[in-house]
Amino acid sequence: MSEKENNYIEGKRPVVEALRSGVPMEFVMMADNLRKDGLTEDIRRKARNANVPVKLASRKVMDEMSQVENHQGVIAKAIPYAYAKIQDIVKAAEDHAAEHDGAALIVVLDHITDAGNLGAIVRSAEVVGASGVILPSKRAARVTTATYKTSAGAIAHMPVALVSNIAQTMDNLKKSGFWVAGATEHARDVIWDANLKGKIVLVMGNEGEGLARLTMDSCDFLVKLPQEGKVGSLNVAQAATACMYEFLRQNRPARVRDARA
Amino acid sequence: MSEKENNYIEGKRPVVEALRSGVPMEFVMMADNLRKDGLTEDIRRKARNANVPVKLASRKVMDEMSQVENHQGVIAKAIPYAYAKIQDIVKAAEDHAAEHDGAALIVVLDHITDAGNLGAIVRSAEVVGASGVILPSKRAARVTTATYKTSAGAIAHMPVALVSNIAQTMDNLKKSGFWVAGATEHARDVIWDANLKGKIVLVMGNEGEGLARLTMDSCDFLVKLPQEGKVGSLNVAQAATACMYEFLRQNRPARVRDARA
Repeated sequence: MSEKENNYIEGKRPVVEALRSGVPMEFVMMADNLRKDGLTEDIRRKARNANVPVKLASRKVMDEMSQVENHQGVIAKAIPYAYAKIQDIVKAAEDHAAEHDGAALIVVLDHITDAGNLGAIVRSAEVVGASGVILPSKRAARVTTATYKTSAGAIAHMPVALVSNIAQTMDNLKKSGFWVAGATEHARDVIWDANLKGKIVLVMGNEGEGLARLTMDSCDFLVKLPQEGKVGSLNVAQAATACMYEFLRQNRPARVRDARA
Repeated sequence: MSEKENNYIEGKRPVVEALRSGVPMEFVMMADNLRKDGLTEDIRRKARNANVPVKLASRKVMDEMSQVENHQGVIAKAIPYAYAKIQDIVKAAEDHAAEHDGAALIVVLDHITDAGNLGAIVRSAEVVGASGVILPSKRAARVTTATYKTSAGAIAHMPVALVSNIAQTMDNLKKSGFWVAGATEHARDVIWDANLKGKIVLVMGNEGEGLARLTMDSCDFLVKLPQEGKVGSLNVAQAATACMYEFLRQNRPARVRDARA
């Protein structure tokens, strides 16, 4: 889906859904002859609550704007997602480390292609307090209006950066004092034996292929989650969450343990 | 979705998708005047590979069978999912414990309503070697043809039982020597401090409400995953996976640790 396509959200239900998911919008446009119904009232109410202006326009103007077959008299213009700079993510991680006994987490996704997986990983990353997510700028899922839904809104609070060269970015992160851990079933060590203390970059591979060879070679070490089943493989978002929680477990501050009743 | 509705899968794409996901089928029916195209050829090929008979029928007969607006000349009949008996799951867990230093895991879902979450949990449960999943028979997602897809086929290898009374089932499992752990953000203890060694029943709550009060009261102990984010909450399938991996970590056999290079 191109950035251009993502700017318009068309049709009653898609616009309600986008408002519900917290997609930031420039405006909602409604046909000036649009019949009131439950959905249009819901759109007006949600737009008002989100401080999104509602404009009226003629069907003719809207037909010309529209990129779909039937916009149903409702078109919203989304504000394009503002990607973070990699330096901002590194800075956020440094700040986090300063406040958390030296611990910080950045997640790198090596060509995740499913938008649902991207959203799910962003959601979990926000919950574990990760400082940012890094995506390749080509051949990978990007932040779209759908990501607001699949991340349950967490995307609005998680810096995401696009980089043209994943391996080079990993090298730069190493120079900034991060340990780069790649998750792959080809790893010799299970994640529980790895040292995930401190400033960690967790690299997750593509849904089908896993980590690319070049990416794998750029990691400081590789880790795997043990798999005990007979047939299955772990979904990449589930795997990312389990790895992120292992990071959190290993970096648990001593004062929390000591304060236990 | 009722069991009745689930028996028919209608339309070219839904049938291709179901064949791809490994949904067991009694037959695929095709209209006798159906025009050959890429999809119909794909259906024939996949049905042949899965040993599913393809029958021809008149449009008139198919229109009468159909429960949707446009079946496109293709209707498959799925074989209803065969739920396991709770005794079979307990037996499987006992067998697992005998082979794994006393460790076994059963997952109880307290009114999970999203079919995608059910499938995702079943997929992860299969990967960690859980012995079965228990669902309430009312007001909860059940195994449907969609579960084959969202579980990436793992549903065919994971016993799932329906019970009418979750709390009573938990009491019975306790009597069979299981420790029942409920995952809830209201827990005092984080999961890393809980003892998940041995025969464990992990109880996950509903997407919106979490564990019901009665369910919570029937647990031996409650555990939570720490949440460090500012806005988010963990998706229930992600939370279940992180908890299941903590079970696996705590029950890691000593011989595996000793054998490390």
